[in-house]
Amino acid sequence: MTESRPNNPASDQSGLLLEAFDAQLFRETSETALAKLEKHLSDQSIRGLELTDPAKLSEAAKALMTTERERVAAFDEEKLAGIIDLYIRTGIQVHSPGYMGRQFSGVVPLAGVIDFVSSVVNQPASFYEAAQLPNAVERIMADELNRFIGWDPARFTMVTTSGGSLANLTALLAARNQKLPGYWSEGGSSLRGQPRPAIAVGADVHYSVARAAGVMGIGEAQLVRLPLNSRGQICVADARPALEAAERQNLKVFCLVASAGSTSVGAFDPIDELAVLAREKDLWLHVDGAHGASLLVSDTLRAKLRGIDKADSLTWDAHKMMFVPAPCTMLFYRDKEASLTAFRQKASYVFDEEPDIYTAYDSGGKNFECTKRPMIMTLWSLWAMYGPALFAEKIEYLCQLTEEAHAIVRAEPDFETLHRPEANILCFRYHPAGVRKEEVHRLQIAIRNSVKLRGNFFISKVNVDGVAALRVVMMNHQITGEHFRMLISEIRRTGQDLLSSEAATETA
Amino acid sequence: MTESRPNNPASDQSGLLLEAFDAQLFRETSETALAKLEKHLSDQSIRGLELTDPAKLSEAAKALMTTERERVAAFDEEKLAGIIDLYIRTGIQVHSPGYMGRQFSGVVPLAGVIDFVSSVVNQPASFYEAAQLPNAVERIMADELNRFIGWDPARFTMVTTSGGSLANLTALLAARNQKLPGYWSEGGSSLRGQPRPAIAVGADVHYSVARAAGVMGIGEAQLVRLPLNSRGQICVADARPALEAAERQNLKVFCLVASAGSTSVGAFDPIDELAVLAREKDLWLHVDGAHGASLLVSDTLRAKLRGIDKADSLTWDAHKMMFVPAPCTMLFYRDKEASLTAFRQKASYVFDEEPDIYTAYDSGGKNFECTKRPMIMTLWSLWAMYGPALFAEKIEYLCQLTEEAHAIVRAEPDFETLHRPEANILCFRYHPAGVRKEEVHRLQIAIRNSVKLRGNFFISKVNVDGVAALRVVMMNHQITGEHFRMLISEIRRTGQDLLSSEAATETA
Repeated sequence: MTESRPNNPASDQSGLLLEAFDAQLFRETSETALAKLEKHLSDQSIRGLELTDPAKLSEAAKALMTTERERVAAFDEEKLAGIIDLYIRTGIQVHSPGYMGRQFSGVVPLAGVIDFVSSVVNQPASFYEAAQLPNAVERIMADELNRFIGWDPARFTMVTTSGGSLANLTALLAARNQKLPGYWSEGGSSLRGQPRPAIAVGADVHYSVARAAGVMGIGEAQLVRLPLNSRGQICVADARPALEAAERQNLKVFCLVASAGSTSVGAFDPIDELAVLAREKDLWLHVDGAHGASLLVSDTLRAKLRGIDKADSLTWDAHKMMFVPAPCTMLFYRDKEASLTAFRQKASYVFDEEPDIYTAYDSGGKNFECTKRPMIMTLWSLWAMYGPALFAEKIEYLCQLTEEAHAIVRAEPDFETLHRPEANILCFRYHPAGVRKEEVHRLQIAIRNSVKLRGNFFISKVNVDGVAALRVVMMNHQITGEHFRMLISEIRRTGQDLLSSEAATETA
Repeated sequence: MTESRPNNPASDQSGLLLEAFDAQLFRETSETALAKLEKHLSDQSIRGLELTDPAKLSEAAKALMTTERERVAAFDEEKLAGIIDLYIRTGIQVHSPGYMGRQFSGVVPLAGVIDFVSSVVNQPASFYEAAQLPNAVERIMADELNRFIGWDPARFTMVTTSGGSLANLTALLAARNQKLPGYWSEGGSSLRGQPRPAIAVGADVHYSVARAAGVMGIGEAQLVRLPLNSRGQICVADARPALEAAERQNLKVFCLVASAGSTSVGAFDPIDELAVLAREKDLWLHVDGAHGASLLVSDTLRAKLRGIDKADSLTWDAHKMMFVPAPCTMLFYRDKEASLTAFRQKASYVFDEEPDIYTAYDSGGKNFECTKRPMIMTLWSLWAMYGPALFAEKIEYLCQLTEEAHAIVRAEPDFETLHRPEANILCFRYHPAGVRKEEVHRLQIAIRNSVKLRGNFFISKVNVDGVAALRVVMMNHQITGEHFRMLISEIRRTGQDLLSSEAATETA
């Protein structure tokens, strides 16, 4: 390392740049943030979301912005503290037991710390030389997790990408380009006179898959929606006739997408049986395990994904059930050659002419991003420090808690259960006697919104068979059955209030 | 807020979860990271990259992983310190004046602090209710920056997304769906018998645009590459005949992509003139300003993007010339209606049936991500604390430094300049007398790799007119002309060593 140091250019520059890049100020602002985050993580009160009028929040934000005139003065610690306070306060309180709402979670705090390092050292991860450790541990992590998938260690591969939607699209591109070889270069026009390409999905598939068909030039209308059984899984007995009907309509299905589990109710499609069908029909089998793939790390829950070793690709979000900051998505391919078919191009400034031991680790040719966050670092660090036990223990608790919640709802005569939960997602309705069927939908939406506005609990809603349902996703191991009973009471009280005020309006 | 608190579930759980979510441990590990980062930021020695054999690095990483047997013991602070040390040490030293290599940079430290808050509070930003402040300030930031673009404040819109490649794809989808209305639903098959859709680009366009054509089902071969002038800009005089030739080949060009500036040499296409052409031919005009849009905030540099007010969309990476952690990309549309055409779908669990004042702020329908990092928070926080001056001052210094570097290279008889820099990117060659033309390409690659391996400086390489060139990107305001002279000396020394060892081999 050269130690000689030319004159500091700062002499030509105002104090602004000197201040903004000052290491001492970095320490002070970090300490401010850390103190507030520590307090936030320690607060175990039951709370959901403080929903704020966007116009009012914008005013509050603007009041924290330094005006040009104020800039002559020194750094305004108070305004920074105000920004961090407002940021923390207005978020969904994902670390509180009141949060039962969505598939993101209160992160394992250490993952936040590692992400802090990532933010400062700024190593974009699509190329080995720009992010050596992230690229090295990406392979380690891939090997660790493939032990649970069960693919040939010498043949499989994994690439990280910014979210499950993008991973699904990437896998579908690889499928399209493998099964329809002219498509990458010539586009849809290459198929003149041939059947229209199509993708088979469960009727309840995540919206990103339907969207991918629109993006890829396959066309959103070219989805073959396979019927579900009463548990919300693709019904294999009905799938074959549905595929054959599609063929008769001059569609060429090239890919089958299974969910593990579905976003709405957490249902796991029968991968094992679908793999047989996929092989028979020469379909690429992609499994969207954004939510549920994490169950693979648990000895007791792994069987939900039976047959995963026969899939061609798997989307796995670590920012869902592995509790790291979003996004951290892994896309696994059974065959590494296939991963190279998603994109093909050359660019001399990033892709080296002569591959070497370093560029062999590059992922830029396999993921959408040219500049990619080194997202694997959070997951690998947790894995390095705690091993699989941390994840397995938490996931098992959450699934068991959801079972318990299901039993609690079933015991309440004015509530309706809709499915036996397969993982940590539970959908149900408040449906007391006397409420007409056509009122149930609106009632659930009104309850969900009222509960949200009250701010004690945060839950979500989803349509099940076309009718709204209340949905809880258990992501916090500090939630107990007792907390869920409190939620049930609040839902009942809210529902009764809504019904009686409606009755009053009708009478008036 | 409900304060009552049911029994802690931890009684059923092992110490593992208790420990991993302990706020005190969070403080301790944060302090460890902070101390190392502060030291890292304070180190102003001249250094590039310590390139490491991936196999050796993997071994080092594995040695830091706790084995199952060790897990019985308490949290291993030492291993964590080892992980953070290894992470910092093996990155490109973007905060050092030795780093002149790529378009990412040493971040403004405060942006790293805010990103730390984002990592812990975990507010996915595609939906207002999950990330209230990020969504509110996204509009504030859009308004602030649109003052420099100049679009109708009531009509334009901006959406954040995970990187410039994705922003370019999103804009091209909006263009495709607007100009070819059946494509989203029916795909490429909807155009049977019609001309093939195509995209016009500068011959030097970023690889993500060519890739987008392949992704979208347009086909990578349906790019109409417009000739460049000697400065690396699209030559408008040649563009019209090129477009007309494409029409004669039965191509329907629907979109024109201009660069501001180009990745290779930082050239700014003449947007003003291209806008006239685009209007005449009914083309969507997209400007890839991933690198150069930030020049808009500078009064002295803004003119490089003259005509931007006539474009339809603009990609702007804040993780390049606004010095925040990657990714933070903004995609601007002149017409907010157009932003809705990139994707169309419904999903009851995320898109509300009845839009209200809250869901009006949702961006999930306009960006790829369902779970999106609240990336705007870093940029807005810097803007709130420092205003535009921080960015303008730094960018102006970097561009002026690059001018100076150009003058330095021009004065060296054994070096060859290739362009007058328009921004902070400079390409040149080491080409002493006596080196045959056909040897120049390999010599530059060999020099680049040797310099990289020596570890004092990190620069990149790019092909200019098919021949490799050395490329510096000035991203650090602590670099001076003196540092650049040191680099030039190192390149000369390296080049001479390579040439004399080759000569020795030939003689032997």
